[in-house]
Amino acid sequence: MPEKVYQPLIQNIRETVSISEQELMLVLASFQPKVLSKKEILLQKGDISNHMRFIADGSLRVYYLNEKAQEYTIQFGIKGWWVNDLYSYLTHQPANYFIQALQPSVVLQIHRDSLNKLFDQIPSLERFFRIKFEKAYVALQERTLHRASLSAKDRYEQFRAQYKDIEQNIPQYVIASYLGITPEFLSVLRSQE
Amino acid sequence: MPEKVYQPLIQNIRETVSISEQELMLVLASFQPKVLSKKEILLQKGDISNHMRFIADGSLRVYYLNEKAQEYTIQFGIKGWWVNDLYSYLTHQPANYFIQALQPSVVLQIHRDSLNKLFDQIPSLERFFRIKFEKAYVALQERTLHRASLSAKDRYEQFRAQYKDIEQNIPQYVIASYLGITPEFLSVLRSQE
Repeated sequence: MPEKVYQPLIQNIRETVSISEQELMLVLASFQPKVLSKKEILLQKGDISNHMRFIADGSLRVYYLNEKAQEYTIQFGIKGWWVNDLYSYLTHQPANYFIQALQPSVVLQIHRDSLNKLFDQIPSLERFFRIKFEKAYVALQERTLHRASLSAKDRYEQFRAQYKDIEQNIPQYVIASYLGITPEFLSVLRSQE
Repeated sequence: MPEKVYQPLIQNIRETVSISEQELMLVLASFQPKVLSKKEILLQKGDISNHMRFIADGSLRVYYLNEKAQEYTIQFGIKGWWVNDLYSYLTHQPANYFIQALQPSVVLQIHRDSLNKLFDQIPSLERFFRIKFEKAYVALQERTLHRASLSAKDRYEQFRAQYKDIEQNIPQYVIASYLGITPEFLSVLRSQE
């Protein structure tokens, strides 16, 4: 695996905390790359998520199935972002969500036990994750409480602003389920652009 | 303010992380006690929450007003717990919630700036809050996503198990709004106990 694949993670850490070169090498050595083909499942409902996961290349989505086996996409993840069923990771409970690659992707993974050991050695890394968990809290609140108050048109515009680089890789029906609308209504919104 | 009021906070920190006596003294010196009378408002909608807040004595509730000015209680806080509009604290946005004392209470508060300074001096404290934010994420997910799948009866039983020490201090209509049911239906549930 070429070193290049670690660059987005190095950047992500360095833009959040100050960390020495030596500490950074120690951190990177604990992340394993996982190569995913298009549509490959990274995490299944029912599995326990034991890793924190960083997207080094490509894009993924997080979705669940309702009791009628319909897919609801709740989140997208693009290069430079973290992706997980964080509730499963934090509680050791089986995941409620699936995580799937939308295109050929590379994810860097660190096991919970390795991460906890590193926290003892590298306080900067603990700061990094303290800040990440703060952001995860904010994102969850925005997703569950605030987004419900936006109109479908506003949600679509927010989606386009956030995910413009990957929009062309995402099937229509996935975007529609993320927006909570039908594919037909998505076409109407697009024709108004 | 007698030292006794700091005991629950000392216990809360010590049961989560190991910290020296000297570091602990430094931490406690940055917390200011705030005495609240029954029904007193600690945080108002529209204010920015600039403090992390620990309940040293008494109990509080977090609620919002809908567009018809009806109160919805979303959370209770009892002695030994943290209480906040955490979204407001983390984003510096105006609070969406009110925080009110249910009985005479004492809250220990630390300003965001003091806390961030302490993180540089005391890595154990940063670990403490890294763990707190993980738990806050889990609690938010349980509140917003999982609780919706419980029946009113199960929600009431969960409430009783969690808040048995303060149930007698909480008005009926507040408990009903927390459970998402009418006060009349709450009476029916209680008569079935």
